[in-house]
Amino acid sequence: MGQGSTQAASAAVCTPATPAEVRAMIRDGYTGYTGGKAPGYVQANICILPKDYAEEFLLFCQRNPAPCPLLERADQGSYRLPRLGKEIDIRTDLPRYHVFRDGVFCEEVTDIRDLWSNELVTFALGCSFSFEEALREAGLPMRFMDRGGVAGVYQTDIETQPAGRFHAKLVVTMRPFAPADAIRAIQVTSRFPNVHGAPVHIGDPAAIGVDLSRRYRDVGSDEILPYELPLFWACGLTPQLAVANAKPPLCITHAPSSMLVTDIRNASLASF
Amino acid sequence: MGQGSTQAASAAVCTPATPAEVRAMIRDGYTGYTGGKAPGYVQANICILPKDYAEEFLLFCQRNPAPCPLLERADQGSYRLPRLGKEIDIRTDLPRYHVFRDGVFCEEVTDIRDLWSNELVTFALGCSFSFEEALREAGLPMRFMDRGGVAGVYQTDIETQPAGRFHAKLVVTMRPFAPADAIRAIQVTSRFPNVHGAPVHIGDPAAIGVDLSRRYRDVGSDEILPYELPLFWACGLTPQLAVANAKPPLCITHAPSSMLVTDIRNASLASF
Repeated sequence: MGQGSTQAASAAVCTPATPAEVRAMIRDGYTGYTGGKAPGYVQANICILPKDYAEEFLLFCQRNPAPCPLLERADQGSYRLPRLGKEIDIRTDLPRYHVFRDGVFCEEVTDIRDLWSNELVTFALGCSFSFEEALREAGLPMRFMDRGGVAGVYQTDIETQPAGRFHAKLVVTMRPFAPADAIRAIQVTSRFPNVHGAPVHIGDPAAIGVDLSRRYRDVGSDEILPYELPLFWACGLTPQLAVANAKPPLCITHAPSSMLVTDIRNASLASF
Repeated sequence: MGQGSTQAASAAVCTPATPAEVRAMIRDGYTGYTGGKAPGYVQANICILPKDYAEEFLLFCQRNPAPCPLLERADQGSYRLPRLGKEIDIRTDLPRYHVFRDGVFCEEVTDIRDLWSNELVTFALGCSFSFEEALREAGLPMRFMDRGGVAGVYQTDIETQPAGRFHAKLVVTMRPFAPADAIRAIQVTSRFPNVHGAPVHIGDPAAIGVDLSRRYRDVGSDEILPYELPLFWACGLTPQLAVANAKPPLCITHAPSSMLVTDIRNASLASF
């Protein structure tokens, strides 16, 4: 992970890369964002838990598919995800990882080989990058993306369906659109139930307990123009909040915008 | 059309009838609404024009599929619509007709055999009854229907695409929904592009030039509860407005809520 390889990685940013090339770049030391890398391919949220928490988390995902669209669960102890990419090694193939102990964030690392054990179970969840690509391809403007930013994130007062020790208020992302674009955005994202799907709410933020000026962890843009409506999508930070509540002794997730780049095409997830 | 046949028609209202039975009932003198008759089957707006206006009207429909979803155009002079129902006779199979001369409403009649000529061309257009059935089946509440009423109708300031002498501001229907139901309503109606499809607008009425207190021809309900959003769909009264502007010497349409009941199933129009 020396300076040389980081420069090589930066150079690779300029040209579209295959998912395998992006993962190799990350294994070689790239520690930046994955947004925009390997365009057209699904990027996944990652949540790694001790086996004693795996069944309950699986059930939490099953009961809350909008915030927790499960793409894959690895075999216990396996750092492979062959259905998402043949040579994936989840211990090295994310640019940065967040480590939580007893539900509390401890450190950010770029490799988890030291932390790995046969007790761990890896979950890969769909993420909004996929539907944002579809929105962009549909010509729907998202100003925050033009500025290199991300959608505003908010905690709602909507309780998800609990499963054992896992429970959380729904976390959402907000994207504002002019009315006709809002209708189109609902159509476009409805095609992608495996990556959060349609919005869960449109219009008045207070109806779901949201104050737009109070973003979750200060993430993203809260700008809405006078003629726009805010649309709210279920967000993959919901399961991280559920992990904070469940307080497993160890949990490892991707760092924000530092996802697993898979071999699955975004378009292959479209339901019609 | 004596009292006897009207009572027979009223009795038939209580049991689901086939489209052919409903048309026979109408031919036999029923002059009421067709809403709720032959559930599951498409009902069509009808517009009958002199041949000199037929090509321009066809083009107007082609350019404005949301308000003018064309299901069928009969051959010139033919009162048959075999693709919508084998024995249909458009001169007798609507409960009531509206007759316009030079674009101005003249009279309501229950039979147009006297007015028929080989110069006339019949157009059948999809109507919102089909998607309202889909909304109702999806469990989306519409209070105006529970009260036997219809959706509020409004003229917008949106100009449709003109074709020859036909031009009109877009007319819309308004249905209010709670936010999550509004998202679902967009999904459900998106499946039915042949019967107006998805809404054209959501939220602020003024953005499309609508004042909710000023309904078009005083038709329908304008009630919106505080937590609801108004959704606006393109409406089949738009082509009638275009006819008023084109001023053909003769035009015959269905009377409001007195449609052609066809043999086409609503579900067969669903695009996915």
